[in-house]
Amino acid sequence: MAITEYYTPTHVYFGKGVEDKAGEILKKRGATKVLVHFGGGSVKKSGLLNKVENSLEENGISYIELGGVVPNPRISLVREGVEIGRREGVDYVLAVGGGSVVDSAKAICYGIFDKEKGDTWDYYAYTRVPEGATPLGVILTLSATGSEMSDSSVITNEEKGLKRGYNSNFVRPAFSLLNPELTYTVSPYQTSCGTADIMMHTIERYFHAGDTLELTDRLSLALVKEVMEAGILALEEPDNYDARANLMWAGSLSHNGLMQVGNAVRGDWACHQLEHELSGMFDVAHGAGLAAIWATWARYVVAENPSRFVKMGVYLFDMEESGDKMADALKAIDYMENYFKEINMPTNLRELGIDPTEEEYRKLAESASYFGKRTLGSFKTLTPEDMYNIFKAAR
Amino acid sequence: MAITEYYTPTHVYFGKGVEDKAGEILKKRGATKVLVHFGGGSVKKSGLLNKVENSLEENGISYIELGGVVPNPRISLVREGVEIGRREGVDYVLAVGGGSVVDSAKAICYGIFDKEKGDTWDYYAYTRVPEGATPLGVILTLSATGSEMSDSSVITNEEKGLKRGYNSNFVRPAFSLLNPELTYTVSPYQTSCGTADIMMHTIERYFHAGDTLELTDRLSLALVKEVMEAGILALEEPDNYDARANLMWAGSLSHNGLMQVGNAVRGDWACHQLEHELSGMFDVAHGAGLAAIWATWARYVVAENPSRFVKMGVYLFDMEESGDKMADALKAIDYMENYFKEINMPTNLRELGIDPTEEEYRKLAESASYFGKRTLGSFKTLTPEDMYNIFKAAR
Repeated sequence: MAITEYYTPTHVYFGKGVEDKAGEILKKRGATKVLVHFGGGSVKKSGLLNKVENSLEENGISYIELGGVVPNPRISLVREGVEIGRREGVDYVLAVGGGSVVDSAKAICYGIFDKEKGDTWDYYAYTRVPEGATPLGVILTLSATGSEMSDSSVITNEEKGLKRGYNSNFVRPAFSLLNPELTYTVSPYQTSCGTADIMMHTIERYFHAGDTLELTDRLSLALVKEVMEAGILALEEPDNYDARANLMWAGSLSHNGLMQVGNAVRGDWACHQLEHELSGMFDVAHGAGLAAIWATWARYVVAENPSRFVKMGVYLFDMEESGDKMADALKAIDYMENYFKEINMPTNLRELGIDPTEEEYRKLAESASYFGKRTLGSFKTLTPEDMYNIFKAAR
Repeated sequence: MAITEYYTPTHVYFGKGVEDKAGEILKKRGATKVLVHFGGGSVKKSGLLNKVENSLEENGISYIELGGVVPNPRISLVREGVEIGRREGVDYVLAVGGGSVVDSAKAICYGIFDKEKGDTWDYYAYTRVPEGATPLGVILTLSATGSEMSDSSVITNEEKGLKRGYNSNFVRPAFSLLNPELTYTVSPYQTSCGTADIMMHTIERYFHAGDTLELTDRLSLALVKEVMEAGILALEEPDNYDARANLMWAGSLSHNGLMQVGNAVRGDWACHQLEHELSGMFDVAHGAGLAAIWATWARYVVAENPSRFVKMGVYLFDMEESGDKMADALKAIDYMENYFKEINMPTNLRELGIDPTEEEYRKLAESASYFGKRTLGSFKTLTPEDMYNIFKAAR
């Protein structure tokens, strides 16, 4: 059994009104010049940004605004943030938004800290390794990526059409303020994308090769079941506090490392890597892309260990076992696919709104396999040809 | 809904052989003079201490040994450790043992850091507040108290016959090395005590007044169910890795704060406070003391909210609901009591091996209520008279 590490230093504050604490917490942590990073105009229109900036001012903390983060956050804006940060002596970054804003902020934190003052893309291209990062605080407005506690960030290089992730403990946020009320206005589509993303962060970890810690299995399935129910409730009643609260906390726990402790490997993650190619090429929403590809992946790999799918089906869908493991495993996959349909998520590429050409299918597989130089997955190791097959079968 | 905080900075390393990393990790963290703190001779006999000290030597770290921690760790040994630490310039404490050793080490960490060089008992008597603590690492040999990730420590003042806890983030261990194999030799009795203790850390949080986050309920009940099964398996097969691994990780998660996130209050904790009086006066094992008092407490408070007990019964014991809530709640309590019997834990004071006199009952209630100055519990607020009643009924 491999050694697993669990390291989640992020100080989480959870509940109504926690965003009011931003200035006080930043002051206590010694911040003097803060880069306030956000996306579109919604945090301005809602008054959240104003509220947060007032809290900074009341605590005598100066700040610079940098908005404009888009889904699949881009290296160009990261470079702009890094340049501002270096020039202005920024000593803390505060992300106000969803996962894209947090990921963009993480990249900026690497860049500001970088003593070589190099190009921040280097880290995501794996040509340099960061030696630290400027500290980061988060005010979360979308339950989805878990970036508010995770070590990961994913950045898109829009010139090269590449989407790449980089993980390190340096960018685990120092603190995260989680107020479920801030997600009441999230659209039904984004709520469903978030639900799918949270489920998939746990499911990707659940499907792995080798030994499993039963406690981790139990916690994982308990979390996914809660997310499935809370997702439906949040669609029906967007301002239901409990639904939003359960989604929000599940989002953090699904991706902070808890759901892999004691397992032989850290999960499968093939679906995530395949999806990164889709959203790198077609700019689709991450959660929707995951839902669109999962069932195809599952049917492609199920023979490796059908029992794992059966266990999931029994727990999540109260499925009765027939004795035919493969049949039951396939039924569990159907159930999961049906759940995605129930929350209006696509379950294939056409429903996702894309229909790649043969050349694009080849390109997707080439990019996912780093031009044939890597395999994906651990539940089943996928060759470049497997990747191509899954993309095609997901049409 | 109150704001809850989740803060678990402890870097956990989990798996076979992690204790070999001690020296390397301490060196990376800048330790130069380490106080190696432990209990009786078992860590010497097993060769663990030797192994750990070799790992320190290989990394050029000097150390001082301080053994002798007993269950219900005593302020006298803490004072000795503090004196050594101050005199020798100790900059890191390494606890090698179970919860008592970790708790004793935490108290020593407060004391070494104390710039006033005062008496460390002051913190536990609530007459002074610590301003920090020397950093702490843990090599765990017993799954029970969760002290390896928690903010709490409980110390006994043997002169005054008092057992008092103090909580602060200062003493959350910087790192904890969790190797389930190190618990293979734990005796059946201590395995059961640990199982009861872990269950109770979660159950104490589960029973509280006010709103609940459903995800936290689900995770809590999933954890307790796993602990109940792993506890039985560990008794049957002491060297079953999975059983020991599930108990060990459950011990950490049951007391690091995870099982209270999003809830209105941090739990009930009356049983813990009542048990502290029992083990302060009679030196009984903490887990056994908790098992001995829980069912009596439960029947005393059940009318406050029987549904909470029913929910627990349905999840943990696949109990079918009859429609009569109170009857079902009482049945759930019976089931839990039977589980404690199944793992050979006492379910009353006589089975615990004590039979207090009337004067002792009065004293227990006086001490638990700080001489009438505090109530206990949140599920039901217990008056000093209630405490007396529960002690007596638990006979």
